[in-house]
Amino acid sequence: MAARGPREFFAVRPVSEALSDFRPARRTGPERVALADALGRIPAEPIVAREPLPGFARATVDGYAVRAADTYGASEGLPAYLDLAGEALMGRPPEIDLRPGGAVVIATGAPLPNGADAVVMVEHTQAATAELIEVLRPAAPGDGVVLADEDAAAGDSLVAPGRPLRAQDIGMLAAAGVDELSVHARPRVTIVSTGDELVPPSTSELEPGQVRDAVGPGLAALTRRAGGAPLAGGIVSDDREALTATLARALPGSDVLVVSAGSSVGARDETAAAVAALGEPGIWCHGLLLKPGKPTLLAEAGDVPVIGLPGNPRSALVVFRLLGVPIVRLVGGCSHPPAEPTTRARLDRHVPSAAGRLDIVQVSVADGVVRPLFGSSSLLSVMTGADGFLCVPEPATGLAEGSEVEVTLYG
Amino acid sequence: MAARGPREFFAVRPVSEALSDFRPARRTGPERVALADALGRIPAEPIVAREPLPGFARATVDGYAVRAADTYGASEGLPAYLDLAGEALMGRPPEIDLRPGGAVVIATGAPLPNGADAVVMVEHTQAATAELIEVLRPAAPGDGVVLADEDAAAGDSLVAPGRPLRAQDIGMLAAAGVDELSVHARPRVTIVSTGDELVPPSTSELEPGQVRDAVGPGLAALTRRAGGAPLAGGIVSDDREALTATLARALPGSDVLVVSAGSSVGARDETAAAVAALGEPGIWCHGLLLKPGKPTLLAEAGDVPVIGLPGNPRSALVVFRLLGVPIVRLVGGCSHPPAEPTTRARLDRHVPSAAGRLDIVQVSVADGVVRPLFGSSSLLSVMTGADGFLCVPEPATGLAEGSEVEVTLYG
Repeated sequence: MAARGPREFFAVRPVSEALSDFRPARRTGPERVALADALGRIPAEPIVAREPLPGFARATVDGYAVRAADTYGASEGLPAYLDLAGEALMGRPPEIDLRPGGAVVIATGAPLPNGADAVVMVEHTQAATAELIEVLRPAAPGDGVVLADEDAAAGDSLVAPGRPLRAQDIGMLAAAGVDELSVHARPRVTIVSTGDELVPPSTSELEPGQVRDAVGPGLAALTRRAGGAPLAGGIVSDDREALTATLARALPGSDVLVVSAGSSVGARDETAAAVAALGEPGIWCHGLLLKPGKPTLLAEAGDVPVIGLPGNPRSALVVFRLLGVPIVRLVGGCSHPPAEPTTRARLDRHVPSAAGRLDIVQVSVADGVVRPLFGSSSLLSVMTGADGFLCVPEPATGLAEGSEVEVTLYG
Repeated sequence: MAARGPREFFAVRPVSEALSDFRPARRTGPERVALADALGRIPAEPIVAREPLPGFARATVDGYAVRAADTYGASEGLPAYLDLAGEALMGRPPEIDLRPGGAVVIATGAPLPNGADAVVMVEHTQAATAELIEVLRPAAPGDGVVLADEDAAAGDSLVAPGRPLRAQDIGMLAAAGVDELSVHARPRVTIVSTGDELVPPSTSELEPGQVRDAVGPGLAALTRRAGGAPLAGGIVSDDREALTATLARALPGSDVLVVSAGSSVGARDETAAAVAALGEPGIWCHGLLLKPGKPTLLAEAGDVPVIGLPGNPRSALVVFRLLGVPIVRLVGGCSHPPAEPTTRARLDRHVPSAAGRLDIVQVSVADGVVRPLFGSSSLLSVMTGADGFLCVPEPATGLAEGSEVEVTLYG
């Protein structure tokens, strides 16, 4: 076992500080994608309407296009009588000029005839003769109509910057004729697993003492959820030289570099040394006031954020979800990440915690009751059995049985 | 404009009833995927551990492997003295048999030597001589150890049925050596847009009266979010024969068939007739107590669910999100869909509603204040400008200014 190394020289920080202050400046460049592939992607530049939308005044109800002034004062007792002057055809330019005293049959979505400024709902009319209708209520200009630029005026921004594109954004861009757009490239997240005991997940027969690498695939999945592109950085033994060489080789092709340390203190010190050797500005924190996840390391090598995670699979996933996912999103241009699902429910037992650190507790939730799931942080089953997690804030010494807590649900 | 047709013969139903009672039995069959591509997929069969995990007893702390009985009664004043008997090597089968009175150096994750039943943390020990340590606290059997089958026993189920695979599930499957698995195939969702006014989104120049199809791309995006594979069913004119032919052609290759009706009453009747012509058991409801989204149609043709949506892009997206997404998930084997993010905040104005229908109101949320966004249901901009939506329940006649409401946030 190696002696305790240089880590005492590095700052241990609260999670809140890491979230607010460790904000790498690196952003991925743009790439072009087809609109059909743009769901969840982050626009790399403003997208504005080239033309007004919908582009022409349209009926929003089925009825009659009219001049509103012709219906002034109309009532059931004293209807306005209007001459039928044809039908507005769907999908075709308006062919009729509506003259005063006239009405044109129009369906929802059809273009308003020239001269009309309102559509009277069919329910508010009555046929008088084959060529004459009675309008039973007055219409104001604009009633039953959307204007030519009511969805967007030419030059209007069509989507919010820094936010993943949603279904309605895709619809709006389709309406605007945007069939290809510029989005932030997916951050390349290289994931290196270290540990003399680790073998690839495809290993069918294990020797005693060996374990398959669960951290790499788990972090790759979280990377995908964050909009990143995971790159397999491989499995490295707990050896400073090998690790230093692997990280240095991975750095130039990475937008974010992630290394899960071996679990032992010695291995963690080797990881810190290898990360420090990557270059300036170097290590930002070595240790978080967090359980599980204390031996977390945040660094920058050039403008590439480097995240050193605990070797325990569960600790690694907890920390990466808490800190790595926001970093991957940020590097990918996502300044407004989507919210996570939560629920409020009552704790069925006391959750102990030490003051001064954030505790992340895996929980199951059923019928409004939250049950904390305890067990070694090396056990993944505690997390696969969980519906979500709760946070015991830094100042608290625990959460009382029966108290209402907020649980973040795994999506 | 066609006369009001057969829809009066069909049931108009509340949304809650549609959600609980319209439960198509169709499920997609299995397909094999690599573990790296399995995030969010739904296992098609139980996946069990072939072997115990982690597979050997491991240390969970850095320290000394001991026989717990040898530390009985140890204290700072009266330590237990144990003979150093080597080091447990990481990733290698245990080579040392621990004899009574002995201790073996061990790092987190290393295999417990034969004969040991606990690991004493290094912090609770002290070096006496080069070959002797003092143990300052007693250890109980199992302290500092995970057992060989503590993460999973052979035959244990590794993932929950009917639930999308999460990052920790991927990690657990990797640990268990599952590098390929059987998942439900993505439901093929054919999306047909109807309307004489519609042209493909790639159309660069519009004629007056034409609009680009925003519904198809928007529904395709929602389909992807629901784990489905959208298939472009094309744009069809408001013509019963053409629509009937298109739907009949699409049916055999679809797990779910979606058609957005033209916006006008006549077009909606054509859609209902074309859907009814697809075959038994036919239309389940024609009309929902919902705003926007009243003219929604739910049907089954054979075991294929058919969803008829309003032609307005915004209405179509609202309804498909509310009813189509759960159907796509269900057909894809997802019986436990992930929760959606929500937030609670105060309404900044009164929201009127009619009793007897569910109202879906687009809203923006900022600084704990919810602002309803009003505007024609034909306007997509109301939805692209929204952070989420709120529901005004069927019995309510509105929501009062200042009341706290729950908003479902767009993810």
